[in-house]
Amino acid sequence: MSLDEESIGLHKKLRGKISISGKVKLKTQNDLSLLYTPGVAKPCLEIAKDNKLVYDYTIKGNTVAIVTDGTRVLGLGDIGPEAALPVMEGKALIMRQFAGIDAFPICLDTKDPNEIIMIVKAIAPVFGAINLEDIQTPKVFEIERRLTDELNIPVFHDDQHGTAMVTLAALYNALKVTGKGKNNFENVKIGIVGAGSAGFAIAKLLSAAGFSDLIVFDSKGAICLARANEFNEPNEYKLVLAKLNKSNFVGTIDQFVGADVIVAASKPGSVPDGTIRSMKKPNIVFALSNPISEISLEKAHALQIDLFGTGRSDYPNQINNSVCFPGFLRALLDLRVKKITIQMKLAAAKAIAESVKKPSKDKIIPDAFDKKVVKNIFKRVKETL
Amino acid sequence: MSLDEESIGLHKKLRGKISISGKVKLKTQNDLSLLYTPGVAKPCLEIAKDNKLVYDYTIKGNTVAIVTDGTRVLGLGDIGPEAALPVMEGKALIMRQFAGIDAFPICLDTKDPNEIIMIVKAIAPVFGAINLEDIQTPKVFEIERRLTDELNIPVFHDDQHGTAMVTLAALYNALKVTGKGKNNFENVKIGIVGAGSAGFAIAKLLSAAGFSDLIVFDSKGAICLARANEFNEPNEYKLVLAKLNKSNFVGTIDQFVGADVIVAASKPGSVPDGTIRSMKKPNIVFALSNPISEISLEKAHALQIDLFGTGRSDYPNQINNSVCFPGFLRALLDLRVKKITIQMKLAAAKAIAESVKKPSKDKIIPDAFDKKVVKNIFKRVKETL
Repeated sequence: MSLDEESIGLHKKLRGKISISGKVKLKTQNDLSLLYTPGVAKPCLEIAKDNKLVYDYTIKGNTVAIVTDGTRVLGLGDIGPEAALPVMEGKALIMRQFAGIDAFPICLDTKDPNEIIMIVKAIAPVFGAINLEDIQTPKVFEIERRLTDELNIPVFHDDQHGTAMVTLAALYNALKVTGKGKNNFENVKIGIVGAGSAGFAIAKLLSAAGFSDLIVFDSKGAICLARANEFNEPNEYKLVLAKLNKSNFVGTIDQFVGADVIVAASKPGSVPDGTIRSMKKPNIVFALSNPISEISLEKAHALQIDLFGTGRSDYPNQINNSVCFPGFLRALLDLRVKKITIQMKLAAAKAIAESVKKPSKDKIIPDAFDKKVVKNIFKRVKETL
Repeated sequence: MSLDEESIGLHKKLRGKISISGKVKLKTQNDLSLLYTPGVAKPCLEIAKDNKLVYDYTIKGNTVAIVTDGTRVLGLGDIGPEAALPVMEGKALIMRQFAGIDAFPICLDTKDPNEIIMIVKAIAPVFGAINLEDIQTPKVFEIERRLTDELNIPVFHDDQHGTAMVTLAALYNALKVTGKGKNNFENVKIGIVGAGSAGFAIAKLLSAAGFSDLIVFDSKGAICLARANEFNEPNEYKLVLAKLNKSNFVGTIDQFVGADVIVAASKPGSVPDGTIRSMKKPNIVFALSNPISEISLEKAHALQIDLFGTGRSDYPNQINNSVCFPGFLRALLDLRVKKITIQMKLAAAKAIAESVKKPSKDKIIPDAFDKKVVKNIFKRVKETL
């Protein structure tokens, strides 16, 4: 049976991967009177007097909304809110099992960013954190920014920041294994291919971590200040990336030679063989696209890439968000964080990297099933407060 | 320990009465590949091709949204969305335990009916049914009407229709016990005190069941066509009640004498002793307000009411929605109902009544813990299709 057939069979059998269960069993009329009417009136009135008590008496403090409009689901594109639901249930299942989080999918039948913002603000009372997921770039940047400003619970866009944190974690260990960038991240020459959610966030986080020789490429080539006239709404975010291009490199990815690290968050075919061959050895290449990597494992071998990571579970070094978001959200909830800071993201990346005891060529990132990761992220994020 | 203290202690210990659990355990990387990426892409793509398949591959078919804006919670009034959450969790717990439904609370931080309608439509992809709860009258009527028109999943307002169905069920058995209205409901004289969600829906459902001698009272007296000039927006719904007043009775509740049945869905003090004393014996009085009944049990004894029912769990004959909504929503989901009909509500009321094998003065309504009720409602509702 193929993976597709097996997956369809399992999804059909389960009819939903998550379920709402009761934390307590109603056995007697007295249980009903305590947990429902009339007894429930008392916690209601206490919360009405002091809203903070909602964290003491309800699900809020452990509950995350996974919000999508289904416009950019995995690599599948704009497939709509119903078709996005299996992915969101999968994330909820992972959050439950890996981090004990109650996560519920909110798949929205609207693509309008203002409506999405209004809706998320309106449903926020029940949730301790918001996980934005699989919403098109660049509109998701504005949605994230406004919700972060206007809500007093943390708003986490996993496609950006989850990917950025695992990528930085993988990079920390990849540098250790290859002996590059020792205490001097400025000398590590990095090319990031792709300026979507992942590329944008990876560039910003790597820059914040001290990697200053950093150039981001979109389909037209290096993003640089010479192209500033292109960066009008809704692409004004590319100006941020142009400013990271400190050497003012102008040119296509074919013309980009001598890199130490290439991170691709784009699509197959976006990284030319010549660019890889020109890299300084030992070289590090991350091909994050999922389910089809920008560079196949066979190709990576043929190109003699020294340290190779992908988003795929069937290759070594899976640089996948699922090693990050359960622990990061767990930390946000437990520490009652109101707004995510860049320090928290750097700390989480460090924690993920540290979770690999002895990094090696084929093991730069912990396993999603490694229970240490959630604890390590909590510890490191807590230190930033 | 008082009920209040015990309830607070229990709510604090639980920190939420419901939880999101996984239906399947992720044990290996292969489980992750099947239930998350890359395997999850296949059910996503199938749903994208044929939206109906969302019922086969996801939680939708068994999932209910409990939607409130917190403006009319129990008898507590407008306490806000956070303070409403313990009640909504209680309903979710009841739906889980009594009917195996996955229900999730959506407590909205907006009171604007147009925004509420827009939000519920937007979140609908994940849900198989919508349960509107504790939203102020009369705006909830418009919300219910528009959502029913514009969504292709059933929209159930429990405060109206749940209350109406259990009241009609209780009335069926009360008539049996008192020997009134045998095959001739037109001769049963009924006064309904209160024209909120419950009074409105009870009047309409009793009328549909064949009770034609029916008068509804609000704080100004009998609702009648002579008062038609009052019934402008947003109170135009009272015209419906005025039309049910076939005898064109004009007057206050004090002037209403000789009733067989009084149903109070109002507040303590709304039913004068004289009105009760004037009733035709054996008389039937339902005092539905909760947690404080319009008429106390002591008062009911003093007034020598023959058959007395209330909304309270500590009195006999608890006429409470919790005996209805789990089974009714179960039937709506399992029968894939798109719009609720009056026939379904009549059928459910009949099913609830039939669930009491031998009705007696102190047992006209089944216990909320009686497992037969859910099955009986399903059977009877199915017959209407």
